Amino acid sequence: MNFQNELEQRTQKALKVIEHYLPAEEGFASELAAAMNYSMLAGGKRLRPVMLMASYELCGGTERVHEPFMAAIEMIHTHSLIHDDLPALDNDDYRRGRLTTHKVYGEAMGVLSGDALLNYAYETMLRSFSMTAYPDRAARAMQVMAEKTGIGGMLGGQSVDVMNDGKPLSRDMLDYIYRNKTSALIEAPLMAGAILAGADDKIAERFRAAGTAVGLAFQIRDDILDVTGDAGEIGKPVHSDEKNHKVTYVSLVGLEKADEEVRRLSVEAAALIRQTEGDSRFLEALILELTSRNK
Amino acid sequence: MNFQNELEQRTQKALKVIEHYLPAEEGFASELAAAMNYSMLAGGKRLRPVMLMASYELCGGTERVHEPFMAAIEMIHTHSLIHDDLPALDNDDYRRGRLTTHKVYGEAMGVLSGDALLNYAYETMLRSFSMTAYPDRAARAMQVMAEKTGIGGMLGGQSVDVMNDGKPLSRDMLDYIYRNKTSALIEAPLMAGAILAGADDKIAERFRAAGTAVGLAFQIRDDILDVTGDAGEIGKPVHSDEKNHKVTYVSLVGLEKADEEVRRLSVEAAALIRQTEGDSRFLEALILELTSRNK
Repeated sequence: MNFQNELEQRTQKALKVIEHYLPAEEGFASELAAAMNYSMLAGGKRLRPVMLMASYELCGGTERVHEPFMAAIEMIHTHSLIHDDLPALDNDDYRRGRLTTHKVYGEAMGVLSGDALLNYAYETMLRSFSMTAYPDRAARAMQVMAEKTGIGGMLGGQSVDVMNDGKPLSRDMLDYIYRNKTSALIEAPLMAGAILAGADDKIAERFRAAGTAVGLAFQIRDDILDVTGDAGEIGKPVHSDEKNHKVTYVSLVGLEKADEEVRRLSVEAAALIRQTEGDSRFLEALILELTSRNK
Repeated sequence: MNFQNELEQRTQKALKVIEHYLPAEEGFASELAAAMNYSMLAGGKRLRPVMLMASYELCGGTERVHEPFMAAIEMIHTHSLIHDDLPALDNDDYRRGRLTTHKVYGEAMGVLSGDALLNYAYETMLRSFSMTAYPDRAARAMQVMAEKTGIGGMLGGQSVDVMNDGKPLSRDMLDYIYRNKTSALIEAPLMAGAILAGADDKIAERFRAAGTAVGLAFQIRDDILDVTGDAGEIGKPVHSDEKNHKVTYVSLVGLEKADEEVRRLSVEAAALIRQTEGDSRFLEALILELTSRNK
């Protein structure tokens, strides 16, 4: 099967798993469930659940314990998008061509539905204990998911990004923001999938390093596309970083070096994944696809 | 030892445990940690951690596995206060005589620090697995904490309260809001303490029922104090419910019946706790103190 067909099939499978774990829209709190589901079903590439599944399979997992984790990583990611879109943060009215959650359900429900999705990610992961012969692996995978989501991961990166909006950034700080805001939620599914399948610390660390590299490459690619991309093709305005005097990887090191760095990082990530025993072709191809995207 | 001295000692112990588990204010995300700690150390009665500890001890717990849970329930409660105070929700500038988190750190950090505290509650509870000979109990206690926090508990109650602000409420809906917005985060520490100590489902259910009753009594007492209380003594404006045309237990059934209901519920809760083998005097006294408060 070619890569695009396999990606399509795996994305469909991820969507089915996600739908299975969404809250029922019933009872007094049905409106909260509706707001949670609205944002969860607003489209998107389901990249993180697809990565988690691929990592679990590559490391030899044979149970279905990874499925609640697939749903959970998408809930955590969606939580961050809902809160990021709020007026107090990026103040975005549209995402993926649809009204953002707070525009449809009101700002209070934007706050609460983001909270409820973050919490539901844990409710969902906790269901995995009864789905596995290895509850210790599920506990360890949850620890990684929690750490990568919190102050030592995505939320830490978000806070530094928000606090320094429009200010000059050092290379160190930009690196910190990219590693936490973007890489952390790619490290989490790669590591969690491996850990759930029984991978030891050494392998989990390799998946962590691959996730860091993929996240950085993805983010630098974003900076490059803002300079070179076509607004119609990307689906969002270009040259916005320059207009907003935003410090990016491109403004710090230039287009050519940024491009080289993306290539270096994606090759590095694929090489790390290839060290795993088993058929790593899909995961390697996914990494290259992500880091070479033109939109 | 008399009750007030014991309560004071136990509150100090709870504060020490909470402080032990707070995030370090260091590195790039130090401002996020500072915002989290600002709200966690803004005072308060530390009621929920004290209850969790009392329930753990009453049910015969002898490890220190309940300590991360004590910190976690306070983080969850504080998360709900930070987000509740945001302009999009209650828009409060002060809480307990201090500026609210978003007034000090800005609205974006108000959102993010609330998120980070909710997530940190899970990071903290997950540390308990290495502190106990009974990881299955820790997993079960986490499930209860998660369920009582989310759409089936506090956040569900918050959402219905927010959606119906200023609208006429049925008795059923008011009951739903009180049981979820208030009781759920009292049920959680009572149940989690019992489960961590090895209590079976029957005992956990008794602690759940006691928590429901305490939460309802506490909330109805709040409604009563809004009518009969002295603003100076309570530390917040009175008659605000009437001014805001808010449906409360008092407006639905009248002062006298509301008062009777508080008494009935607190006696019921104390009786449920008293069925536990062991010295239940402190927990019973705490329940009666809470439900008979004059401020």
